[in-house]
Amino acid sequence: MATTGYLGPEGTFTHQALINLGIDSEYRPFATVPETLEAARSGVVDAALVPIENSVEGGVSATLDTLARGNGLRITAEVMLPVRFGVYVRPGTAAAQVRRLLTHPHAYAQTREWLIANLPHAEVTEGGSTAAAAVTVADPGSGFDAAICAPIAAERLGLSALAEGVADNPDAVTRFVLVGRPAAVPPPTGADKTTLVAYMYTDRPGGLLEILEQFASRGVNLSRLESRPTKKSLGEYCFSIDADGHLQDPRVAEALLGLHRVCQRVVFLGSYPRADGRRTEIARGASDDDHAAAHEWLRSLQG
Amino acid sequence: MATTGYLGPEGTFTHQALINLGIDSEYRPFATVPETLEAARSGVVDAALVPIENSVEGGVSATLDTLARGNGLRITAEVMLPVRFGVYVRPGTAAAQVRRLLTHPHAYAQTREWLIANLPHAEVTEGGSTAAAAVTVADPGSGFDAAICAPIAAERLGLSALAEGVADNPDAVTRFVLVGRPAAVPPPTGADKTTLVAYMYTDRPGGLLEILEQFASRGVNLSRLESRPTKKSLGEYCFSIDADGHLQDPRVAEALLGLHRVCQRVVFLGSYPRADGRRTEIARGASDDDHAAAHEWLRSLQG
Amino acid sequence: MATTGYLGPEGTFTHQALINLGIDSEYRPFATVPETLEAARSGVVDAALVPIENSVEGGVSATLDTLARGNGLRITAEVMLPVRFGVYVRPGTAAAQVRRLLTHPHAYAQTREWLIANLPHAEVTEGGSTAAAAVTVADPGSGFDAAICAPIAAERLGLSALAEGVADNPDAVTRFVLVGRPAAVPPPTGADKTTLVAYMYTDRPGGLLEILEQFASRGVNLSRLESRPTKKSLGEYCFSIDADGHLQDPRVAEALLGLHRVCQRVVFLGSYPRADGRRTEIARGASDDDHAAAHEWLRSLQG
Amino acid sequence: MATTGYLGPEGTFTHQALINLGIDSEYRPFATVPETLEAARSGVVDAALVPIENSVEGGVSATLDTLARGNGLRITAEVMLPVRFGVYVRPGTAAAQVRRLLTHPHAYAQTREWLIANLPHAEVTEGGSTAAAAVTVADPGSGFDAAICAPIAAERLGLSALAEGVADNPDAVTRFVLVGRPAAVPPPTGADKTTLVAYMYTDRPGGLLEILEQFASRGVNLSRLESRPTKKSLGEYCFSIDADGHLQDPRVAEALLGLHRVCQRVVFLGSYPRADGRRTEIARGASDDDHAAAHEWLRSLQG
Repeated sequence: MATTGYLGPEGTFTHQALINLGIDSEYRPFATVPETLEAARSGVVDAALVPIENSVEGGVSATLDTLARGNGLRITAEVMLPVRFGVYVRPGTAAAQVRRLLTHPHAYAQTREWLIANLPHAEVTEGGSTAAAAVTVADPGSGFDAAICAPIAAERLGLSALAEGVADNPDAVTRFVLVGRPAAVPPPTGADKTTLVAYMYTDRPGGLLEILEQFASRGVNLSRLESRPTKKSLGEYCFSIDADGHLQDPRVAEALLGLHRVCQRVVFLGSYPRADGRRTEIARGASDDDHAAAHEWLRSLQG
Repeated sequence: MATTGYLGPEGTFTHQALINLGIDSEYRPFATVPETLEAARSGVVDAALVPIENSVEGGVSATLDTLARGNGLRITAEVMLPVRFGVYVRPGTAAAQVRRLLTHPHAYAQTREWLIANLPHAEVTEGGSTAAAAVTVADPGSGFDAAICAPIAAERLGLSALAEGVADNPDAVTRFVLVGRPAAVPPPTGADKTTLVAYMYTDRPGGLLEILEQFASRGVNLSRLESRPTKKSLGEYCFSIDADGHLQDPRVAEALLGLHRVCQRVVFLGSYPRADGRRTEIARGASDDDHAAAHEWLRSLQG
Repeated sequence: MATTGYLGPEGTFTHQALINLGIDSEYRPFATVPETLEAARSGVVDAALVPIENSVEGGVSATLDTLARGNGLRITAEVMLPVRFGVYVRPGTAAAQVRRLLTHPHAYAQTREWLIANLPHAEVTEGGSTAAAAVTVADPGSGFDAAICAPIAAERLGLSALAEGVADNPDAVTRFVLVGRPAAVPPPTGADKTTLVAYMYTDRPGGLLEILEQFASRGVNLSRLESRPTKKSLGEYCFSIDADGHLQDPRVAEALLGLHRVCQRVVFLGSYPRADGRRTEIARGASDDDHAAAHEWLRSLQG
Repeated sequence: MATTGYLGPEGTFTHQALINLGIDSEYRPFATVPETLEAARSGVVDAALVPIENSVEGGVSATLDTLARGNGLRITAEVMLPVRFGVYVRPGTAAAQVRRLLTHPHAYAQTREWLIANLPHAEVTEGGSTAAAAVTVADPGSGFDAAICAPIAAERLGLSALAEGVADNPDAVTRFVLVGRPAAVPPPTGADKTTLVAYMYTDRPGGLLEILEQFASRGVNLSRLESRPTKKSLGEYCFSIDADGHLQDPRVAEALLGLHRVCQRVVFLGSYPRADGRRTEIARGASDDDHAAAHEWLRSLQG
C-alpha cells in the first residue's frame, strides 16, 4: 500500500487536511517540512502533504524554499482547510486555572487578540507545533494548563475544549499541497493551477516587471506571487508564483517559454486541479483556438 | 525573360533604383503605384518596384495602403537611393530666363528653400511626376522653362543642368521595395527585415501598447512604425511596421503569433535582406539558442 | 474686423469648413498649407484654418510637419466636414463627352473606383487643388471637360453636376483645425482634445512604448497617433498625438510632465473643445479628485 | 534621557545592532516585535529597533505586518548586522556532551547543515529567542547543554564558545530598522531609501504590474518587494516595498502620487539614509533638474 508523508506529529492541521484529501494510503508523520519533502524526493514515501500558504501568516517559508531549490518535486494536488483553533485543557481544568498555555508561534499569532481578551493573565509559551503542545498539555506533570491546537489533536488525546473557533480571523484558511516525484503531469481539467519559481538575473533591473509581462502578454492571470530571498545576499529574490491554467494550455506553455528566456532559472513545480474547481477565465485572443489559429497562420507563412 | 514593373514613367527615381538593383529583367513602367502593384499581383509582371518611404516626406501612402489591403503581395528586397534633385532646362536656357518651373509635389516640398533662395521669381507648377515634368520641359512649346527631376530623366531627354543637388536636405534618402507574388520567403541572412501591417480591434484601448509589447517582450526591435487610416472612420488606424529579423527567427515568429492573437488582422508582407546589411543585434534571452533551450525545457516538462 | 486665413483657393473644402465654423471674420485664401500657417504665425491673419486629417487619406503631411516644427502656433478649435465630391462640367456637357478630367491627387484617390466604373475612358490629370481644377474646367478653352471638386467650388463658378456624392467611401470625413498665435488656452469643457508632437531620443530603443506608457499610466486615452519623419534620417520619427482631455486636467498635465522628461522634445499644440462634444471618460484613479487627494496625501507626508 | 526599545531579551542580535547604531539613549527590551513597536507608537519609548529582513530567512513577518497596518510609525534609520551564530555551552561542557540543544527556529534554519555535520546526535529544541536559549542553557538545571545564539548573549552570561561562525551561509546579514512616531522626515542625503506598503484593489487584475509601472515610469528602482497576505482571504496580498530615493526627490514624490491613485491604500513608512551609503543612480530624465524643467515648461503652457 502506498504511503503518504505529512508534516506531523499526528494531530496537526496537515494531518487533518490529509484525512480530508481521502487518499487510499498509509500516513506517516515527519518532524519538519524539509524532512517531509525529502522523504518524498528520496522515495521513502510515495507523496507528501505540506502547508504552503496561510491566509493570515502568508507563505510557509520552509515549504516555499525547499521546493524552490528545484529538487525535482512536483505538486499534484492542493487542499484548503479552514483554520479552526481551540483552547484545550485536561478534563476538569477551568478557564480561571489556566496560567501557562503552550502553542506554536503561528497559532499564537492568529489567536493573540482572543487571548488578550479572554485569558489575559495566561503566560504563553511557543513550541514546535500545536500538536506537540497538545501532547505536552495532556501530561499533568508538564507544567502547562492549556494548548491552542487543532480539534483533531485534542480529540486524539482526550483533551476538553475550553473554547473553540478562537482564531482572531474566523475566515483564516490554510492551503496544503501534495508533492511527489516527477511523473506525468495530471491532465488539464479547465480549472487548474501551475506553480513555479522564477529566479531573476541580478543585473537586470526591472526583472520582475519583465516576468509579469510574460504572463500578462499571454493573458495568464496570477493568483499568488511571493518573493523569497535566494539566500545569497540581502535584496536578491526569487518569485514563487501560482498561475491560472495548465502546462498543456498553449497560453501557459508560451508564458513558460518566455520566462525561461528572461530568467536566470525557472523551476516548474506542477500543474494540478484547483481545490475550488473555479474554471479559468480566458481573455480574448488567449484561448486554445486562438493559439491554434495563430500557429496555423504562421505555418502558412513559413511554407 | 522576366519583366519587372516600376512606378514610371521612365526617368523617375524608381527607375534609377531599379537600375541600381541590377535585376536581369526587362523593365516596364506603370503610371501609378496601385497599377504597378496590381501588375505584380495579377502576373502581368514578375515583380514590381515602388517607393515605400522617404526620409523627408515619410511613408508613401499609395504603397502602404495598397500593400496593407493584404492582397497577397510580398516584399522580397529593398533598395535605398539618395535623393539627388536637379534643376534641368533645355540646352541654352539661362537661370534668369526661368519663369515657369514644373515638378512633382514631393520634389517641390524637398526643394522649396533652394527655390526661394535661388529662383525666387519662378512660378512653380506641380504635376504628376518629376519624370513627366522633364518630358514636358523638353518640349519647347510646353510653356515651361525648367523641371526639377532626377538626373536620369534629364540625361535621357538631353536636358542641361542649371543646378544639381538642390534638395534642401542633402541627406534625403528614398527607400524602395521589390514586390512579388507570395513564394518561398528568401532565407534568413542574419541582417533581415520583416514588414507587416497590424489592424487593432477598435474596441480595445491601449491596442498599440499591446502590439508594441508583443515585439518588446521577444526582444524584437522595430525600425519603422507608421499609422495609416483604415479608411473606415476618422481615428481608426492600422500600423505598418518594419521589424528587425526574419520570419524564420524564433523571436520574430513568436512575436507574429502574439500579434495574430491580439490583433483583429495581421498582414504579413515579407522577410527580406536589409539594404544596409547591418546585422540584427540580439538581446539576452532572444537568440535562436535561447528559444531552442526554452522549447527543449518545455518538452521535458510536458513529457 | 478680424481676418481668418484658409487653404485656398476659394471653393475648397477648407473654405466650406470655414463657412461652417461661422467665425465673424473676413476670410483670406492662401496657396499652400505652410503659407496659410505662416500668415497666422506672423500676424498677417488672426487665425488660419487648415485640414489636418482625412479618414481615407490619413494625416495631412504639410499641416502635421509645419505644426511639428513648433513655431509657437496653437490649435484653438476643430471642425469636421463630410467629404462630398462631385463631378462637375460646364453647363451642356454630357457624360459621354468627358474625355479629360482634372482634379487633385487626394480627390482622385478617393473617387478612383467610381471613375473606373462610371467614366472608364476619361483621362485623369492631377492638379494642385480641387478648387483650381474647377476654375480651369470653367474655362471652355482649358482642354478639360470635367472637374472633381467640392460642391461649393462648382456652385461659385456656375458648373453643373454630372454626379454628386461620388466618393468611394461615402463616410469619408476631413478634420480641420483653427490655428493661431499662442494665447490663453481655451478653458476646459469636459470634452476636450490636446494635440502635441513628441520627439524621441534616437538612442532610446523602446521610446514609443515609453511615450505610450506616460499616457496609459495616467489613464489618458489617445484618439490619434501618427508617425512623421523628422526629416533627418530614414527611420527617425516623431509622433503627432491627439490625447483626450485638457492641459488643465491633472492627468493630462502629469502625462505632459512625464513626456517632457522622457522625450528629446515635446511641442504642445493646444487644448481645445472636441467637435463632436463627446465627454472624456475617466478611469478609476484618474479623476481630478483622485489627483487632488493624492497631492493632499503627499503634502501631509512631506510636512 | 531618551529610551530606545528593542526586540529582546538582552543578548539578541537586535540588541547588538542597537549597540552598533550608537544612539545616546537608554535601551529597553520587549518580548515581541508587536510589543516593541507598540511601545514606540504609544510613546512608552522614543524609538524602537526591530529586525525587518534577513538575507536567508527573508522578511520578518511580524515587523512587516505590524508596520503595514499603518499605525503612523515611521522608519528613520536602518542598520545591517552580519549574522554570527555560535554554539555556546556552560564552561566545561565538551562537544561530545551536547545532547540537548536550544535555539530559535530562525537560528536553527540557518545552522541546520552545520549541526547535521558537527552535532548530528544533538536533539534540537526551538524556543522563543536565541537570547532566551542562552539564558536557559546558562542554568545547569535546565536540561539543555548548548545554545545557538549571538556572541553578545553568550558573553553576557559567561558561556563558552564550542564553535563560532556556524551559520550555513557565512554572508548572512540581518537588516534592522529604527522606528518612531511620525515627525519631520530626515532630510535627503542622496543615498536614501523609502519604505511603503501598497494595497491593491482586489478587483483590479494586473494590479502589481501597474504598481511596478508607477515606479518604472519615473525611473525609481526598487531594492525590495515582498508580498504579504492582507489577512482577509487567501490570495489577497499587499506589497511591502523599498524604493531607492527620498520623499523629497521629485521622482519618488511623483511615483507616490501615482501609487495613491492606482492603489486602494498606500502606507508611507519613511525615507531615511541607506546603511551602505550607496548613492542613488539617476536615469536620464529622472533627475531633480529634469523634473524642475518639466514643471517650468508646463507652467509656461498653462500661462
